[in-house]
Amino acid sequence: MKAVNLKEKLNSFSDYWNPRIVGRLNGQVVKVAKFKGEFIWHKHDEEDELFQLISGQMKIAFRDKTVILNPGELIIVPRGVEHKPMAEEECEVMLFEPESTLNTGDQDSDLKRDTLEEI
Amino acid sequence: MKAVNLKEKLNSFSDYWNPRIVGRLNGQVVKVAKFKGEFIWHKHDEEDELFQLISGQMKIAFRDKTVILNPGELIIVPRGVEHKPMAEEECEVMLFEPESTLNTGDQDSDLKRDTLEEI
Repeated sequence: MKAVNLKEKLNSFSDYWNPRIVGRLNGQVVKVAKFKGEFIWHKHDEEDELFQLISGQMKIAFRDKTVILNPGELIIVPRGVEHKPMAEEECEVMLFEPESTLNTGDQDSDLKRDTLEEI
Repeated sequence: MKAVNLKEKLNSFSDYWNPRIVGRLNGQVVKVAKFKGEFIWHKHDEEDELFQLISGQMKIAFRDKTVILNPGELIIVPRGVEHKPMAEEECEVMLFEPESTLNTGDQDSDLKRDTLEEI
């Protein structure tokens, strides 16, 4: 058991849309990622997904609205809801979700990451 | 679906050791709490528990060591591990744990909170 410093973890890599695992509990994982640009529209049929902003600004598009997230804010995207993460400039994010969650959800894409690095 | 501002939620109450629920996902809850002083030794037999520091400083005592948490840091306490949260000055914390988690774990105490407010 030790303290996990999110900023240190985030400083250890620089690529976008490639989450790393930094913790596990109760069948869920804690991940960190850097986002820049536009991801793809997707949904997770069986998993709710939490995004917490660490630095920068993130937008998350839904079919009927777009929500802006600033540092200290989080959003929970319920299973089955289509969404598209976006960031005009680089942002840093923490995610909580079940271990089974694929980053691209129900979509096949070059952006899919089947196995995530644990850091 | 909307952004949850953790600081706004924390500014809406002032008592210690009384977590509020700010989100739910996958059978887990996201809580925020203010801590000051010493809590009691306890463990959760069935639940792993995550503490993330939002402001101030928290110490978490284990039987063999004490871990200090600063803002931007988190710790995961595995089920079955005795721990005692402490804070010399007020600190603000986000918790992530199963809905079934009691704040005092296996211990009976006046500090037990059976039902938590949702804010």
